[in-house]
Amino acid sequence: MEKIIVCGHQSPDTDSICTVLAYTALKNAVTNGGYVACRCGEVSNETQFALDKFGAEAPQLIEKVEAGQDIVLVDHNEEGQAVPGFADANLLEVVDHHKLGGLKTNEPLLFRIEPVGCTATIVTKMYHEQGVAIDKKTAGLLLSAILSDTLDFQSPTCTDVDKIIGRELAGIAGVDADAYAEEMFSAGESLEGKTAADVLYGDFKPFDQNGVKFGIGQGSFMSAANLKKAEELVVPYLPKALEEKGIQMIFFMLTDIKTQSSRVLYAGEGAQAALETGFGKKQADGEEGILLEGVVSRKKQMVPNLLKAL
Amino acid sequence: MEKIIVCGHQSPDTDSICTVLAYTALKNAVTNGGYVACRCGEVSNETQFALDKFGAEAPQLIEKVEAGQDIVLVDHNEEGQAVPGFADANLLEVVDHHKLGGLKTNEPLLFRIEPVGCTATIVTKMYHEQGVAIDKKTAGLLLSAILSDTLDFQSPTCTDVDKIIGRELAGIAGVDADAYAEEMFSAGESLEGKTAADVLYGDFKPFDQNGVKFGIGQGSFMSAANLKKAEELVVPYLPKALEEKGIQMIFFMLTDIKTQSSRVLYAGEGAQAALETGFGKKQADGEEGILLEGVVSRKKQMVPNLLKAL
Repeated sequence: MEKIIVCGHQSPDTDSICTVLAYTALKNAVTNGGYVACRCGEVSNETQFALDKFGAEAPQLIEKVEAGQDIVLVDHNEEGQAVPGFADANLLEVVDHHKLGGLKTNEPLLFRIEPVGCTATIVTKMYHEQGVAIDKKTAGLLLSAILSDTLDFQSPTCTDVDKIIGRELAGIAGVDADAYAEEMFSAGESLEGKTAADVLYGDFKPFDQNGVKFGIGQGSFMSAANLKKAEELVVPYLPKALEEKGIQMIFFMLTDIKTQSSRVLYAGEGAQAALETGFGKKQADGEEGILLEGVVSRKKQMVPNLLKAL
Repeated sequence: MEKIIVCGHQSPDTDSICTVLAYTALKNAVTNGGYVACRCGEVSNETQFALDKFGAEAPQLIEKVEAGQDIVLVDHNEEGQAVPGFADANLLEVVDHHKLGGLKTNEPLLFRIEPVGCTATIVTKMYHEQGVAIDKKTAGLLLSAILSDTLDFQSPTCTDVDKIIGRELAGIAGVDADAYAEEMFSAGESLEGKTAADVLYGDFKPFDQNGVKFGIGQGSFMSAANLKKAEELVVPYLPKALEEKGIQMIFFMLTDIKTQSSRVLYAGEGAQAALETGFGKKQADGEEGILLEGVVSRKKQMVPNLLKAL
């Protein structure tokens, strides 16, 4: 049988790794099989903690896909965020919770986006709809993705559906959601041995608005020491990152989980203006980047405001 | 409360009228209400028969939508097929069964496409998923849409899911699906008092492939006399239609429901070549258009083959 690749976005976060595993298992349970969980980037410390906790193997690492390869996208629906080679692959399905990215196809397909906090929430609903029981390992993976994307149900992207499903999954997985979230975030935020590029590109997404290419990275931390350390690593690296990624502006959200705010570091022509216009806030003298209180979501807060400003 | 428009595509077919009514009812049942069923085109004879049969009123006719108007698209996901003004409206949801048309949004939304024969099939699943009972009238409307889109379960777009759900709906509606389909198609195909434009634009969709603008109309008939009559009306009108629609090529599928074939009439530079290349068949001497055996679906057969040829 030809294999069908199920893959999350580049620079995969916990949703793009754990939900890919869970959705692949669902597809193989309700079809003749052949679905293979894949990833197109390294597993973060946070995600590895979740995989170890629930005894799961990481998806298979792929560099690119061949032309005509059957593929299912999970947690993204934009060509620029997909595995290299995607443009010539054969798109079979999309399950996602992001804005529509303008994909076109020649034939109808299964395309499901819902405005919830995490793709894992949609995949859990699909398990229910298709009458497939969720085992302890899968529940743990789906829960990890939800806790990660919603910052333990605190992010403004978090909906009531995410909360209800997250609590249900915690019950199946046999963990206390809040205590487990703290363990997972702490494991994830360790900066030991990390380079500036590791921190900046660990969760990084490129965008293109009317020809203006920019990128937004995000790092979330619980501890003040780690916030400071990450800032010191990333700030001097930003000009180099512009060149490496071939983009005009770069933004890095240094997110303080406890205070639910982000200090946005930036570089590139127009970046400061876009940020100040988008959020109606001026950078203070001597301030490194701009501190945005209440801003913790790239998808729901940073991207819409920057797109409007650009 | 601000109203939310639920609307099908331009030149609405039975799916775009009846499924809009059913989906509006579902949304109003599971939310605080405010959803209004709308249409941006005339109700066909076939659709009117279905509305009368099940005691339903047609959706409200709208010419265009205002900027910022909240809108839900049913049975289409391309700007060119939507109600005028759509580009500046606020898209809340899409429920559809067509190819992806490249829409972009600034925020996540509910976007659901499934590769089934009819949007009504997806909406029926959503009633089930959301635990809302389907009443006799709604079942009749949903069934009418499925029978119309799948040509009484005979079209190549028809899936097993359409068949299972169609039979279930027939049971709730209290009709024999095949007998009802025959009544509905016969009511729909009457050409009494019809002009060439009525026939050609009755079910017509514009497309744009790499800047090549073209349009495809379709008329389906059971009786040989009506097939002949429709051909005699449409053929001399095609060159005028090119001008009226501002397109380069036009195709009209004269579909014979009984033999499951279509005679494709055409006009415009490159139209004959696109058709011959797309389907690997030459027009015979003295033949009007090209007869394509087994071709009855615009979406699954005409559009993909023409896109490849262009």
